[in-house]
Amino acid sequence: MSKRAEPGKILYTQAYDYILDRIRRGDWKAHDKLPSVRALAGELQLHRLTVFRAYRLLKEHGIVYVKEKSGYYVSEGTPYEEPAGAGGYASAAAPRHEAGRLQNALSEVHRIPADYSFSQALIDPNLLPNLFLSDHVKQVFDRYPKLLGTYSSVQGDEELRELLSADLQRKNKLQVSPDELLITTGGQQAIDLLAGVYLRPMDHVLVERPTYSSALDCFRQRGARLLPVEIRRDGYDLDVVEAYLKRHKPRMFYMNPTFHNPTGYTVPAVQRKQLVELAERYGCLIVEDDAVHDVYFVQPPPPPLYAYDTEGWVVYLRSFSKYLAPGLRICAVAARTAAMAPLLTAKSLADNGTPLVNQKLFQHCFESVRLQLHLEKLRTALQIRRDVMEQALASGTGWQWFRPQGGLNLWVHLPDGLNANRLLTESIRRGLTFVPGTICDPMGEMNDQIRLSYSFMNEARIQEGVHLLVRLAEELVQSE
Amino acid sequence: MSKRAEPGKILYTQAYDYILDRIRRGDWKAHDKLPSVRALAGELQLHRLTVFRAYRLLKEHGIVYVKEKSGYYVSEGTPYEEPAGAGGYASAAAPRHEAGRLQNALSEVHRIPADYSFSQALIDPNLLPNLFLSDHVKQVFDRYPKLLGTYSSVQGDEELRELLSADLQRKNKLQVSPDELLITTGGQQAIDLLAGVYLRPMDHVLVERPTYSSALDCFRQRGARLLPVEIRRDGYDLDVVEAYLKRHKPRMFYMNPTFHNPTGYTVPAVQRKQLVELAERYGCLIVEDDAVHDVYFVQPPPPPLYAYDTEGWVVYLRSFSKYLAPGLRICAVAARTAAMAPLLTAKSLADNGTPLVNQKLFQHCFESVRLQLHLEKLRTALQIRRDVMEQALASGTGWQWFRPQGGLNLWVHLPDGLNANRLLTESIRRGLTFVPGTICDPMGEMNDQIRLSYSFMNEARIQEGVHLLVRLAEELVQSE
Repeated sequence: MSKRAEPGKILYTQAYDYILDRIRRGDWKAHDKLPSVRALAGELQLHRLTVFRAYRLLKEHGIVYVKEKSGYYVSEGTPYEEPAGAGGYASAAAPRHEAGRLQNALSEVHRIPADYSFSQALIDPNLLPNLFLSDHVKQVFDRYPKLLGTYSSVQGDEELRELLSADLQRKNKLQVSPDELLITTGGQQAIDLLAGVYLRPMDHVLVERPTYSSALDCFRQRGARLLPVEIRRDGYDLDVVEAYLKRHKPRMFYMNPTFHNPTGYTVPAVQRKQLVELAERYGCLIVEDDAVHDVYFVQPPPPPLYAYDTEGWVVYLRSFSKYLAPGLRICAVAARTAAMAPLLTAKSLADNGTPLVNQKLFQHCFESVRLQLHLEKLRTALQIRRDVMEQALASGTGWQWFRPQGGLNLWVHLPDGLNANRLLTESIRRGLTFVPGTICDPMGEMNDQIRLSYSFMNEARIQEGVHLLVRLAEELVQSE
Repeated sequence: MSKRAEPGKILYTQAYDYILDRIRRGDWKAHDKLPSVRALAGELQLHRLTVFRAYRLLKEHGIVYVKEKSGYYVSEGTPYEEPAGAGGYASAAAPRHEAGRLQNALSEVHRIPADYSFSQALIDPNLLPNLFLSDHVKQVFDRYPKLLGTYSSVQGDEELRELLSADLQRKNKLQVSPDELLITTGGQQAIDLLAGVYLRPMDHVLVERPTYSSALDCFRQRGARLLPVEIRRDGYDLDVVEAYLKRHKPRMFYMNPTFHNPTGYTVPAVQRKQLVELAERYGCLIVEDDAVHDVYFVQPPPPPLYAYDTEGWVVYLRSFSKYLAPGLRICAVAARTAAMAPLLTAKSLADNGTPLVNQKLFQHCFESVRLQLHLEKLRTALQIRRDVMEQALASGTGWQWFRPQGGLNLWVHLPDGLNANRLLTESIRRGLTFVPGTICDPMGEMNDQIRLSYSFMNEARIQEGVHLLVRLAEELVQSE
């Protein structure tokens, strides 16, 4: 097993978060005796050394103290505040952002206003057939006159599910009946629902390293333990995957095997089949996030893992609206009956079903004759933007990246000696944002890599922005 | 403290669920020794007797067995299945519906097809100005030509939040800045987000008895313990509320004080102020669900509890789209800064923000001059339906109910000797549905009461349906 992927650090920082969280919530108050290392290790099913390291770090941070021959105690003045005033409960009852339990690092980067936004892995609205679609969808209100007054079923509109089922069959050779599809409000909701159904505190989840950071934050919110597997140009090291499956029995493997976010890698077909077999053998649910399936530049990607799954071990998330009408937020989750039942309950508790108006507007967009033409144009436009970004990066010294054959991002190694987070701080000052590798990495490292999205700005601004970034990097290196 | 509200039964059935859930998930396998009563009581911060009762019931059900002088062990063949085939993980990794952890009882009633649906507390689409609105909203696509291609911010569209802030100020004298508003996809999502932010397994939540059952299911999904407080015509017994606050330090009091669902009661203004003071004193967050504020028949309801809150102890959920364009699913959550921050993170993880198109369509509907006129007509129409339902019920013998001054439901005591669930089974066979009291009651009792919604069907069908129900009830009583 590769040394870098060893999850020891993850485990003890998670034990740290767990203890800190319980102190903040008032379960253990100032001068309370904490459980012994042995007892807590038993309760959390962790190695004692892991709990010991967590306590040691809490001690270093002044959050707990030690009495000789007695054990660990909660320090005075730790973050828990007696609920006694404005917002007191926010620190008492609510998980703090700093505790690492409730956060969305990517969403915070997105909130930073920027002239040059390389952080948004979204399609530039100018690349969408806006006027055509806006005119087109008005007919929907005539066709369904009570649309604004009607709720969808929890699972999603039947006509839409039939349409998507037929499309998956025709274009991807996927056998998915309409009953095996659930409509969610975007892929993010699907990930959150699956986390809610399958994960409990201290459960293990296999994740790629690096990966989509908002998924990591969903899993952390549920208190899950992350097991990172490196993704490379040729896929995963299946020996590492199997070792993790055998040793930790993770509940779930969250993966993004097609034009992977952020790296752009695509897991080859032969591994897809083997991964499904491993999932079956070890009883691990694969959550296959397929967000940009149709955004390929040369040839369509290999079939999804879902295509190889005969026993119901893969749940497939297919974002549909992203490259046509992203504002509608339509994702389809394909799952066999056994996995669908709890998902439907979770969806009913989350929002009672995606609003019908979004589904009907999307259905109308998706059926439009312009769709295929739009997709072809979009692929060309994005490929040109990728090329422009690569040319602009080549003007700098020491920048390295992988050329993706689809998707929206370039995963870039910084020139030697550059630190992604320092570069980001400088960039934000100059009105430019990107995603630092640290937040894509479940281990919080990868500070020498960044994600640059080429999908959101036009060629001229990509060129200007990348040249600015290259200049900033040179200034930083010289000032060291 | 009233005997009926004693939550002992709730606690031990929840401890039962907790243990069963861990067995099902494979944490404890066949013939594993379970923790001692003392150890588990310590871990869950429960009374030993409560854990003892849970173990006893598990033993009765054959899920655990006892070895003399040694303790409890997991029986062979309990629900956990080795993950080894189609859907195996659904029983292993997914919480089972029967385990009580992941369920939505109300949603299941709604899925039953019915000619006479008294279970839907939704406005009849025929009472909405559908054609006007459908024509009207088409302009939105001209005004915002990139609407289908644009994401909302996580918090919600700024124009819409400004509009709702001004409306709350003007009509309800509520001081809520646009920054203190979060737009969610309906009230259900708001409840689910709050549960995610504030509740961890075994936390206490105060809830009304009876109440909105999908909220209960949200809290159960998070493993919370429910503390039921009876709601009466004159509000709550504040001594009971205070005793609970003092003894159990609940994280949250979920309430629905205005035209309460299902009873129709409205908590008087004087209690509202006192409740906010209690919340402050004991550090308990009040979640005030105000789903039908504008549906009053005689006079507007008293100000929300939120109006009395100066210290940030109330989070206010106001459903806006319900009586105008319910298909758009627009709810506004008002919260002071300290509570807003973690809510925004939870919302970003849940779906990255309610789709912009829904917000802009709703904004346009809400600004329309027809709104006020529509609301007045709607109140009259619903009042007439309520009256028709009451007249029809009066044709039966022994039916009793409270006459609500607003809202969508009648809370009805069945004639002596009738059982709500038996009546429901018979009713479903005859194409009629309603909500049995058992699922509105956090304690699962109230089998002699039912909720009948008068909002979804027209007068003729209400009359037919109630007459059918009365006949069925008479047949059932006679057949006993």
